[in-house]
Amino acid sequence: MTLDMVRSDLGPAGPLDSADAMEARLREIGEKRYHNLHPFHHLLHGGQLTKGQVQAWALNRFYYQSSIPLKDAVVISRFRDRATRIEWRHRLEDHDGAEGSEGGIERWLQLTDGLGLDRAYVESTAGVLPATRFAVDAYVRFVGSQSPLEAIASCMTELFAPAIHEQRIAGMLAHYDFINPGVMRYFQRRLTQAPRDADFALAYVREHARTPEQRAAVCEALIFKTDVLWVQLDALHHAYVTGHIPPGAFVPEA
Amino acid sequence: MTLDMVRSDLGPAGPLDSADAMEARLREIGEKRYHNLHPFHHLLHGGQLTKGQVQAWALNRFYYQSSIPLKDAVVISRFRDRATRIEWRHRLEDHDGAEGSEGGIERWLQLTDGLGLDRAYVESTAGVLPATRFAVDAYVRFVGSQSPLEAIASCMTELFAPAIHEQRIAGMLAHYDFINPGVMRYFQRRLTQAPRDADFALAYVREHARTPEQRAAVCEALIFKTDVLWVQLDALHHAYVTGHIPPGAFVPEA
Repeated sequence: MTLDMVRSDLGPAGPLDSADAMEARLREIGEKRYHNLHPFHHLLHGGQLTKGQVQAWALNRFYYQSSIPLKDAVVISRFRDRATRIEWRHRLEDHDGAEGSEGGIERWLQLTDGLGLDRAYVESTAGVLPATRFAVDAYVRFVGSQSPLEAIASCMTELFAPAIHEQRIAGMLAHYDFINPGVMRYFQRRLTQAPRDADFALAYVREHARTPEQRAAVCEALIFKTDVLWVQLDALHHAYVTGHIPPGAFVPEA
Repeated sequence: MTLDMVRSDLGPAGPLDSADAMEARLREIGEKRYHNLHPFHHLLHGGQLTKGQVQAWALNRFYYQSSIPLKDAVVISRFRDRATRIEWRHRLEDHDGAEGSEGGIERWLQLTDGLGLDRAYVESTAGVLPATRFAVDAYVRFVGSQSPLEAIASCMTELFAPAIHEQRIAGMLAHYDFINPGVMRYFQRRLTQAPRDADFALAYVREHARTPEQRAAVCEALIFKTDVLWVQLDALHHAYVTGHIPPGAFVPEA
């Protein structure tokens, strides 16, 4: 990974000699690579998918959702600094909930319930696309194997999430008669949770990436994460829009 | 992973109460899930791809080829038994060659050279599809994190390789004027190497999987590996046949 590595999809990075220069690059990465640009999301939000295709999306995305607390636990394990661990800890509760209170994973299961998927089947992850599994597992592994700074940097895609959640809530409620407001609570909740998390991560990397090399590594970590998200939609598109469902994966009812 | 896990793409596994029952299951997995069945291979071998599409295949497959010695080194590291390490060691030489003698990776680069790809670009892996990277990295990780028995089991896809190599050599030489016999030496060489490797792995799992649970784990490891191979062709097909090239990946010249 070199500072002057040419990326065919992004302009030259420039010198990355300040936190502001790095933040500008991070925002460019989001604008050009975040998965709100993926054709599958246009289909999803525009009401152009069948119920079976929306089921496939929710089923696969459950594998991502249910891996997030594993990822966050690994991130916490990277910090000897107690304050950072404490700051990060609320993410576990956001997703896992607590005794008697639901979290993001439960809200996601309410979505898959609402779509008519069997909860035990969803939780088994048996029908998930292998590409989903490889991409999500790569993310969990990344935060354990790269530097703690890069681990936090890879969690910054939520900087770009509020817009996509708003589009999704409005688009899916407007277009699909099998979607009701109750099952969209996951996204409603993330509208307030995601900005807090993203703001912390951005402030963290602005403060702790002190050299051009570290700022480049932060940018590469965000690029990695946009790949993790994009691959998941590519796999859904290939399997359920183009129609090449791989062996063993979920097959919607006709 | 349970013994009676229903796989939508395979029949019931049966009791797996003997090495023969396990081998029959392994062969069924190969017949139903090996990537010779993938539409992309039919296009490749049947002469229906452009040079740019063949370049994309060779470029991505280089990431797989160049990761194989890493995978084999991890496998070796799992065995305190010296005899197994010695048996496995020739794989490193098959791929890496030695001072003054080429190995499989060099032969693969002769293929990408012959296709007109810049060698430094190929070796940088900069244009590789993220899905390729995630799948291949998952394989390297699998052999380190699962049991040594499963690590060896995941290497058994070469049981099914000779047929695909023969089809590929004949099909590509017959159909593409940009392919000459010199660049197909990788596959010629594998015609003799792969059966030796696969025979050892099969004999090993037949001997060392002694319970129905271990035999089921061997079968799951082979299923995992067929997913690793299938995902790579799905990603190529989606990017370069359907035409959805993800951000940053190789773009063939028009």
